Amino acid sequence: MFAHPYPDRSRANRRLLDAVAKVDGVEVRSLYDEYPLFDIDVPREQAALARADVIVWQHPIYWYTAPALLKLWFEKVLLVGWAYGRGGTALHGKKCLWVPTTGADERGYSAEGEHAFPFEAFMPVVQQTARFCGMIWLEPLTLHGAHRISLGELHAFAARYRARLESLVNDEEASHA
Amino acid sequence: MFAHPYPDRSRANRRLLDAVAKVDGVEVRSLYDEYPLFDIDVPREQAALARADVIVWQHPIYWYTAPALLKLWFEKVLLVGWAYGRGGTALHGKKCLWVPTTGADERGYSAEGEHAFPFEAFMPVVQQTARFCGMIWLEPLTLHGAHRISLGELHAFAARYRARLESLVNDEEASHA
Repeated sequence: MFAHPYPDRSRANRRLLDAVAKVDGVEVRSLYDEYPLFDIDVPREQAALARADVIVWQHPIYWYTAPALLKLWFEKVLLVGWAYGRGGTALHGKKCLWVPTTGADERGYSAEGEHAFPFEAFMPVVQQTARFCGMIWLEPLTLHGAHRISLGELHAFAARYRARLESLVNDEEASHA
Repeated sequence: MFAHPYPDRSRANRRLLDAVAKVDGVEVRSLYDEYPLFDIDVPREQAALARADVIVWQHPIYWYTAPALLKLWFEKVLLVGWAYGRGGTALHGKKCLWVPTTGADERGYSAEGEHAFPFEAFMPVVQQTARFCGMIWLEPLTLHGAHRISLGELHAFAARYRARLESLVNDEEASHA
């Protein structure tokens, strides 16, 4: 499952999505296509999460974290009594893979760079959102410089992403056997 | 100036807002009252920012950062060529005071606590948003345990908040003299 805002604005995100959409067992949900008016259908989203074993959040970084619609999705969908708190176990044990893309070169993410922090300093917001819901936080797959990298580099990243998902899907199948 | 989402859902935020709304020179803007449909008026928001010397972002923490409407406000209002990038100097040198409130006890924000990180680990997202726009990042004023603290503690915090703003307004006036 994917939360994928702004699909038409980003050459990188669109290509990454295309690379994984046909992996067996993958269901793509593009939030900005589904909810252009920010009118998230909460039961529908919760049902999609319930049937997933691996949840992927793929999105461009906007102001150092998830775009506003994904932020709203966290707030509307990850409810107390469902995702956390008393009786909130719907997501426990599911795996969460974060796939953020940044426009800037990775060198911008350092004490001397324009973003003043290493990229990892911005991770806890999304990471702890997943972990607070009892999800297993996987090593994120981060694409830096999405506006600048060559097509070859983009294809190489997409191939790694696809392989990662295939491996996750297969692990899941094995653990169900 | 204030960005203050969900004003009616939080006893703490409402009281804090009341405590500072009458400070001379303070203009309150409650984003969730102004834009319930998330239809932010960008020129109007930019004009409000342009006339402010100190910009305060007061809000409850939702999933470790700003609520979705404030996130959208960052994305829509803080535009390239206006807030950053070539010609983007509209906010340079303005002061930014962050006033987040959390529901949980501060002890939840530690390696052993339910939030797994100290609260400071979640700060870079908002802090660097301000600094990337050339704003001067002031020491934040954080209220923990907003759901649990006594009215006396809440009033004491509100008084500190009010004093902080009065001092900032006066500093500004002095620096203009």
